[in-house]
Amino acid sequence: MKGVILSIAPSARIVDITHNIPPQDVLAAALCLESLRGYFPPGVIHLAVVDPGVGTDRNALAIKTDQAFLVGPDNGIFTCFLADQSKPIQAVRLNNPAYHLPHTSATFHGRDIFAPVAAHLASETPLEQLGDPLAERVELQLPHPVPSAGSLTIHILRADHFGNLITDLKKDYFDRYFPGTPLDSVLVRASSRVIEKIVPTYHAVPPGRPLAYFGSTGRLEVAVNLGNAAQTLGLAPGDEITLEPAPIQEKIVRK
Amino acid sequence: MKGVILSIAPSARIVDITHNIPPQDVLAAALCLESLRGYFPPGVIHLAVVDPGVGTDRNALAIKTDQAFLVGPDNGIFTCFLADQSKPIQAVRLNNPAYHLPHTSATFHGRDIFAPVAAHLASETPLEQLGDPLAERVELQLPHPVPSAGSLTIHILRADHFGNLITDLKKDYFDRYFPGTPLDSVLVRASSRVIEKIVPTYHAVPPGRPLAYFGSTGRLEVAVNLGNAAQTLGLAPGDEITLEPAPIQEKIVRK
Amino acid sequence: MKGVILSIAPSARIVDITHNIPPQDVLAAALCLESLRGYFPPGVIHLAVVDPGVGTDRNALAIKTDQAFLVGPDNGIFTCFLADQSKPIQAVRLNNPAYHLPHTSATFHGRDIFAPVAAHLASETPLEQLGDPLAERVELQLPHPVPSAGSLTIHILRADHFGNLITDLKKDYFDRYFPGTPLDSVLVRASSRVIEKIVPTYHAVPPGRPLAYFGSTGRLEVAVNLGNAAQTLGLAPGDEITLEPAPIQEKIVRK
Repeated sequence: MKGVILSIAPSARIVDITHNIPPQDVLAAALCLESLRGYFPPGVIHLAVVDPGVGTDRNALAIKTDQAFLVGPDNGIFTCFLADQSKPIQAVRLNNPAYHLPHTSATFHGRDIFAPVAAHLASETPLEQLGDPLAERVELQLPHPVPSAGSLTIHILRADHFGNLITDLKKDYFDRYFPGTPLDSVLVRASSRVIEKIVPTYHAVPPGRPLAYFGSTGRLEVAVNLGNAAQTLGLAPGDEITLEPAPIQEKIVRK
Repeated sequence: MKGVILSIAPSARIVDITHNIPPQDVLAAALCLESLRGYFPPGVIHLAVVDPGVGTDRNALAIKTDQAFLVGPDNGIFTCFLADQSKPIQAVRLNNPAYHLPHTSATFHGRDIFAPVAAHLASETPLEQLGDPLAERVELQLPHPVPSAGSLTIHILRADHFGNLITDLKKDYFDRYFPGTPLDSVLVRASSRVIEKIVPTYHAVPPGRPLAYFGSTGRLEVAVNLGNAAQTLGLAPGDEITLEPAPIQEKIVRK
Repeated sequence: MKGVILSIAPSARIVDITHNIPPQDVLAAALCLESLRGYFPPGVIHLAVVDPGVGTDRNALAIKTDQAFLVGPDNGIFTCFLADQSKPIQAVRLNNPAYHLPHTSATFHGRDIFAPVAAHLASETPLEQLGDPLAERVELQLPHPVPSAGSLTIHILRADHFGNLITDLKKDYFDRYFPGTPLDSVLVRASSRVIEKIVPTYHAVPPGRPLAYFGSTGRLEVAVNLGNAAQTLGLAPGDEITLEPAPIQEKIVRK
């Protein structure tokens, strides 16, 4: 893919984000892309290929948002860039073979379609030349926090490289559900463990102890200080975690 | 190695291809290089170091082909670039220490010899200054398909990161052995499984089912749709797979 | 981190050294940095983030040595650059938020503090603007060779990717302890194995046999030719190895 890009756009600057997405794991790739959103210069081209549907009739697409270009399969990998409906985006189906390699395989569109398209975008080819407009895009259907009487049920989306558990609870949702509640007044139940409050960082608890915190991407995470939460707690993607107000007497004692 | 290159050739552009070749696996590196051949701009310098023989009397070499420069140990790692005898190549033994680091270790020629040589090539040093001509190069002796009455025996070369099994059967050999035969009229026996035809892509079969297809590098591969063929089929490098014409009645039924 | 760097310093050249340091393993990162010291162009900025103390009161620092800039947590990761007391260095605590991202998380200073600081250094911001001078830096307390009557006890620091065991014995210490002694006159005891001499390279012994040699970073290493020494010898970081003069009769026989 890098050779194809440099053949078409010799001055393109290529940086690797990751080659460690588990095979076929579109969600892991989507969350990886979410984590870098807004941190690259405007006009960056994100080329992402986790493509279990290659060779089927899934669309290939390119998207222009207010901040970035996105090139890859239409399988939800760019979900986090599409969720903000307030910003207009422009999307095309990559059905103009003039911008693909002359011979395209049925199994490696990363090399044969996505890399040349990204390189042409880097060379200032207008998006609309790459194919026909695409009105609907596939988006991942992620779980959402489920409020009930007295508690909030959230879900583990994935375990990262360190074993930290990333959930579907974002900080802005938390602030709406627990208005005015300090983080240390919310109790977290994960597996059989009770985590008595949300803390700012790993070291608020002793080594080996579980903790809950809002991570660097704005999602609530459960980790073990200097340990591996996925292993220690026996939790995996899809599993539930609950949040509830911490008991009042605890707070009195603390004061 | 990157520091050495940038010290000698500050404007060289370095792109990583892979750092995931299994230790000492020259064949895996050779097949990786085969997969990118022809996809980089002319004049690219491929620096490849999988070097189990470092510190022995194996040669260090640099090669100029019609499309690329190659720098690395003379252990067969560049076999796929050397197989086409019709194109002239120029090769030298890297025995001119003026283009090496001042002190060369006995264990890391990647840093001490190959990186500086690649950087000097990037700085337009002529190949012939790097050492004496080398008439014979080591080439890997890969297995070849073995035709017999009614069938073709092929061999697994390696399992890739996804568990896909790469074989020694290239598409052009297939076309010569089965002239005019459609891909879906050839049956593949792999382990105890019968794969009834060669298909264009993974999704021609249901998830979890094995399939055979010509992969993006032009070799026949055996995979499991959304699975790991090496594990599922219990096959490993060196194992045999056979191809034979599909039974006629099958074809009549299909029509 | 790369996006942050390129947003601030668009023409910065970024090269990846490794993303394979085991989680939280500051020593592995420090030895990795030792291995590349002196091989990059003067003025290089080494940005290193293995940061188990993120969110505690550990300092964030930037250092200017005679050869490089160093940016990362003050946890000993740059120990090898600091050991040479003869060269003056300049160090600051990164407490000037003007050079950080506007919002800094408590868990990912790599992105929020170290990457922007490195980018500002690449854009020629003077070191002293980044924060207050820092007189004392954390250094790793590595083990040291322990001489005794007739032998030298050394220690395994870590096992690398190939299973080679890196020790705390550097070549210059060896030369002082065994003055004038040829490498092949020193016997090495590792686990229950006796390695009868120090050799220049792997291939001085048959495949599968253990060997001792001074590696490409100047430290004594114990390896198994075409094998994995950590597994074969059952040795791990912290374990001891001893060196002693080889018996005289052996040397007579050898001559």
